[in-house]
Amino acid sequence: MIERIAILGTGLLGTSVGLALRAAGYKGAIVGWNRSPDHAQLALSMGALDSVASDPLLAARDSQVVVLALPICATLDFMEKLAGLLGSEHMVTDLGSTKRLIAEAAARLYNTPERAAFLPGHPMAGKERGGAALADANLFRGAVWLFTDDPEAQRSVRSAELVKDWRDLVTAMGSKTIDLDPVRHDELVAWVSHLPQFTATALSALLEEEIGDAPELKDVGGRALREMTRLGASPYSMWRDIAYTNTEAVEHALLALEQRLAHLRENLRTAELRNEFEQANRFRKE
Amino acid sequence: MIERIAILGTGLLGTSVGLALRAAGYKGAIVGWNRSPDHAQLALSMGALDSVASDPLLAARDSQVVVLALPICATLDFMEKLAGLLGSEHMVTDLGSTKRLIAEAAARLYNTPERAAFLPGHPMAGKERGGAALADANLFRGAVWLFTDDPEAQRSVRSAELVKDWRDLVTAMGSKTIDLDPVRHDELVAWVSHLPQFTATALSALLEEEIGDAPELKDVGGRALREMTRLGASPYSMWRDIAYTNTEAVEHALLALEQRLAHLRENLRTAELRNEFEQANRFRKE
Repeated sequence: MIERIAILGTGLLGTSVGLALRAAGYKGAIVGWNRSPDHAQLALSMGALDSVASDPLLAARDSQVVVLALPICATLDFMEKLAGLLGSEHMVTDLGSTKRLIAEAAARLYNTPERAAFLPGHPMAGKERGGAALADANLFRGAVWLFTDDPEAQRSVRSAELVKDWRDLVTAMGSKTIDLDPVRHDELVAWVSHLPQFTATALSALLEEEIGDAPELKDVGGRALREMTRLGASPYSMWRDIAYTNTEAVEHALLALEQRLAHLRENLRTAELRNEFEQANRFRKE
Repeated sequence: MIERIAILGTGLLGTSVGLALRAAGYKGAIVGWNRSPDHAQLALSMGALDSVASDPLLAARDSQVVVLALPICATLDFMEKLAGLLGSEHMVTDLGSTKRLIAEAAARLYNTPERAAFLPGHPMAGKERGGAALADANLFRGAVWLFTDDPEAQRSVRSAELVKDWRDLVTAMGSKTIDLDPVRHDELVAWVSHLPQFTATALSALLEEEIGDAPELKDVGGRALREMTRLGASPYSMWRDIAYTNTEAVEHALLALEQRLAHLRENLRTAELRNEFEQANRFRKE
């Protein structure tokens, strides 16, 4: 039923969506746009797109589904620009890592019978480095794809159908979908995604300071050190907007970890250390 | 030249040493002992040993090389028991994760012309769960094997030869050896091994408290969360002695991470966040 999809932003996620749609058997057109045209051309050459658009607003208007595969602040910006241009024959979704501000903008700008539908989405997939060159048709296979839809959305029949069709395509790309309230979403990802990232960043930055001038010593840590610092390679550009739009929940999670580390530090020689290890073991029980 | 090796302790590391010695072409005898005889029988059945000893002291006396593959406190205990029993025709080594107390005991009890040689060793290899059943002939391949030998050791010609032969066997097992001062060793592993472990334990214990009752949410974190918490499965029994024998260096490293996390938390919306990400990126530069 969807005949044309516009992907705005052809980085790792946007390009992977194009490849995954093709792998899932989607037969319609896929047009892509990227602020830096070279990256859109790369996505085209990889088979993620059928064509590259020079104007993202026209590309969106001429499609039925618009996928915003952009940093969060750019997503919010495009939501404003597209709201007046699109109508009840469109649906827009996004791939942003925080959802509260996006869900608020969706309620304000979309989801009336005359306007386009907006379905806030968040695939829990990625790599520690971005860019179209690392895109992968299987990136979403086995991953969880979160939605934080508005139960009070008032959509046209047509745009509601498009929302359903997009959900079916996400399932066809191999993801398991889970629906959450946007505030609960942001609290949850602060724990399971943002806290691990900021912990790896802090640990990597600290180790760079302590042993960065002795690269042979990095090998000493082996697999355990590599895993605990792999996310240290994540770029600021990917995480700036997350820190900015989920500040309170991330602050809460970081403070809780600081306190937990202090508790462990104060109990290195007491029986309480056993309790901490056993509690940690429970988290890793299958 | 080494005709008989005794491995005291046939857990993951001790059993893997037996398998790796065989894979490296060692032709002599390997006798094993374990406090719980079932585990020694398992190591025997896996081909890591030629025979199981019922008395660890006699097995040590009848071998040329003794490998203490035990927790640190048990290693210190055996060092005391074996010192008077062994002589200049023996060498003893260990696999313990901290080296300062072991090197001190070696200087006090070994390494005179009349006594056995003692070479403190630490292979940087392991798994998050222990036990002979997980042993692997390739566990040490590509890993770093640290030694903290005493430059003032006064050894018999025979025991000095055995030390050299053991170093050659370690290389033959596929490890890269690095020699370090024992105090520097303990400081270094506090950063690259103990800090990552205790961080994973604290993070896993915290997440168990926050989302442990909602196992479906663990999937949301994906690969990043799995990696950052894999070491959460490590048992207290493996880490108790490390925390006990390297307390000061681990306290120092944990406090530094707490401060780094607090700094990051206080800068989630400032330009300083970029500096932290860029510093972390440098640690992960190839």
